[in-house]
Amino acid sequence: MQHPPAEPGMHEQEIDTPALVLDLDAFEHNLDSMAALLAPTRAKLRAHTKTHKSPIIAKLQAARGAVGQCVQKVAEAEALAWGGIGDILVTNEVVGARKLARLAALATIAEVGLCVDDVRQVVAAEQAAAAAGRRLKVLVEIDVGMGRCGVAAGPPAVALAQRIAASPHLIFGGIQAYHGRAQHIRAPEERAAAIDGAIDAARRTVEQLRQQGLDCPIVGGAGTGTFAQEAASGVYTEIQAGSYAFMDADYARNGAAPPFRQSLFVLATVMSTALDGVCVVDAGHKAMPTDSGYPLVRPGLEYVGASDEHGKIVVKDGTRPELGEKIRLTPGHCDPTVDRYDWYVGVRGGRVECLWPVAARGAMA
Amino acid sequence: MQHPPAEPGMHEQEIDTPALVLDLDAFEHNLDSMAALLAPTRAKLRAHTKTHKSPIIAKLQAARGAVGQCVQKVAEAEALAWGGIGDILVTNEVVGARKLARLAALATIAEVGLCVDDVRQVVAAEQAAAAAGRRLKVLVEIDVGMGRCGVAAGPPAVALAQRIAASPHLIFGGIQAYHGRAQHIRAPEERAAAIDGAIDAARRTVEQLRQQGLDCPIVGGAGTGTFAQEAASGVYTEIQAGSYAFMDADYARNGAAPPFRQSLFVLATVMSTALDGVCVVDAGHKAMPTDSGYPLVRPGLEYVGASDEHGKIVVKDGTRPELGEKIRLTPGHCDPTVDRYDWYVGVRGGRVECLWPVAARGAMA
Repeated sequence: MQHPPAEPGMHEQEIDTPALVLDLDAFEHNLDSMAALLAPTRAKLRAHTKTHKSPIIAKLQAARGAVGQCVQKVAEAEALAWGGIGDILVTNEVVGARKLARLAALATIAEVGLCVDDVRQVVAAEQAAAAAGRRLKVLVEIDVGMGRCGVAAGPPAVALAQRIAASPHLIFGGIQAYHGRAQHIRAPEERAAAIDGAIDAARRTVEQLRQQGLDCPIVGGAGTGTFAQEAASGVYTEIQAGSYAFMDADYARNGAAPPFRQSLFVLATVMSTALDGVCVVDAGHKAMPTDSGYPLVRPGLEYVGASDEHGKIVVKDGTRPELGEKIRLTPGHCDPTVDRYDWYVGVRGGRVECLWPVAARGAMA
Repeated sequence: MQHPPAEPGMHEQEIDTPALVLDLDAFEHNLDSMAALLAPTRAKLRAHTKTHKSPIIAKLQAARGAVGQCVQKVAEAEALAWGGIGDILVTNEVVGARKLARLAALATIAEVGLCVDDVRQVVAAEQAAAAAGRRLKVLVEIDVGMGRCGVAAGPPAVALAQRIAASPHLIFGGIQAYHGRAQHIRAPEERAAAIDGAIDAARRTVEQLRQQGLDCPIVGGAGTGTFAQEAASGVYTEIQAGSYAFMDADYARNGAAPPFRQSLFVLATVMSTALDGVCVVDAGHKAMPTDSGYPLVRPGLEYVGASDEHGKIVVKDGTRPELGEKIRLTPGHCDPTVDRYDWYVGVRGGRVECLWPVAARGAMA
């Protein structure tokens, strides 16, 4: 674990870099906005830890009405449970006896659930639950357009649900119906059409489950790019958005976005001005994954190239930042960026207010 | 820090995933091969910690003749010095009083140096060295074609060197002349031409320094893609290759490569086979940065898409891996991949032989 890059009370320009800076005013605005948007709907927030990796942030979301947290990995579930979070759903298949045993062990301190898309996963979860002497909540993942994990909506999902419900060691928790790809479709009407399809698939599956006498407590899915539609559907009961708390350059390119503000930045230092019209910062691939493009800087400055430890910024107009100046970069993709750091540096009014560990940093297993 | 994903003696299929697996036979072959290739030249290896992040690996390189290590960051230098490595060069500008004070503090337990491309950096290094009561070795970085950091070869470099040499707190260490971009140029003749230019620029600068009465102890640079040329030049004294120890899919695409073998893998578990002709593994963007493309799998299998925590593999021919099977992925880019993990799992003959911490994981500051 790396040392904290700052201390409370410091000026932002005194933070050591690269650092993960959280603008607390924007961040709290985002948490409040999501709570306000979901309040009039049937859907509750189950925010996604894959973005923030922090039981501290999970508690701030719970204080505004979130019913629990999602995670993608057992190691993330551990970080949450050990940090006092009481309701955790792994929105993912968990494969491997060692991982399932770790998850079942958490059931003594938290309510935990997971997803399946294969009967062999149900059997394995059952064995882990039996060995631990705990019941595990199991959701059936249906493929609503991702083409990744999940069984087909309708009969295949119902068959898996029946198998889960028949087990004395498992609880049928509902269905997982997340359309991740749709979050990043640029054209609003195309995005809406994709989610219409997901809603139809979920509704149909819930009805068929009911016909078989199975209640479906959770219909979960949705992300920052589409949640308003799932929340308004009357079908989805839980919204699994995560990025809304931070936002990033990729979501900004979606155009007319929800009322969320950019709250997450990588603070970088200008480390070279040897080349005319260019400044080089100390944040490259390792500081900020570029899978969703290069970070945004500010008007007049364009980040045009990343090496492992360098970022090259071209001055398009205006003055070049000074050697040693610290500048905020808006990451292309917030989730993997957060996962690079050990600390959030919370800033308000230009001053460091708090340091929060990224407790589930690197929690991939 | 995450838990170790394995224990010595386990079978490779028992390793928890995603995990960073090092094939020890291939790894040792690579270390031996580099030593053999450099032995008949004037150049010595100063291997790059930015790739391996480990004082353990640094010691294995030293045992085969490496004169020291390079790092890009002060935090990497700390991890090496605290791990017992005695000669460390930051092949990068170090900007900020706090960072310089940390680097100067290491001079009590190791020989440390850094690079500059601005007289203000020389002044700052001088102040840090004076405050610590130690002399720091300072190299002048020249731009040999990267268009990133570095002053122009010739007179601007000589002027900076004279300023360094005149300081009672600094030692002029030589020049840093690394052409990083050239490492990844596909066409061999184009790559060779780029390095010819770098060699000319370095030779010219060394001659002009000599005319001013300045000896140039280190002429450093080169990487895995080009080092044979720099080593044969008679100009370069230190080769800064790092990737050669591991290799990756990007270097493999360079075609006729040096005799290095792929030794580094991300081991992943097949977590879903719900979709026909596809298997989904538990290693996506967070397990393996994709800035140099998707990982390679094995003949008949193609990794076609990454989400944060999923990888989608299409079966082109042959049989689909089983649910729960663990498969090796060859990362697109080794350096940022290593930096994702807390542990190397060393494997030989299908068994786990050792676990080594990635001591400088996340050492970005």
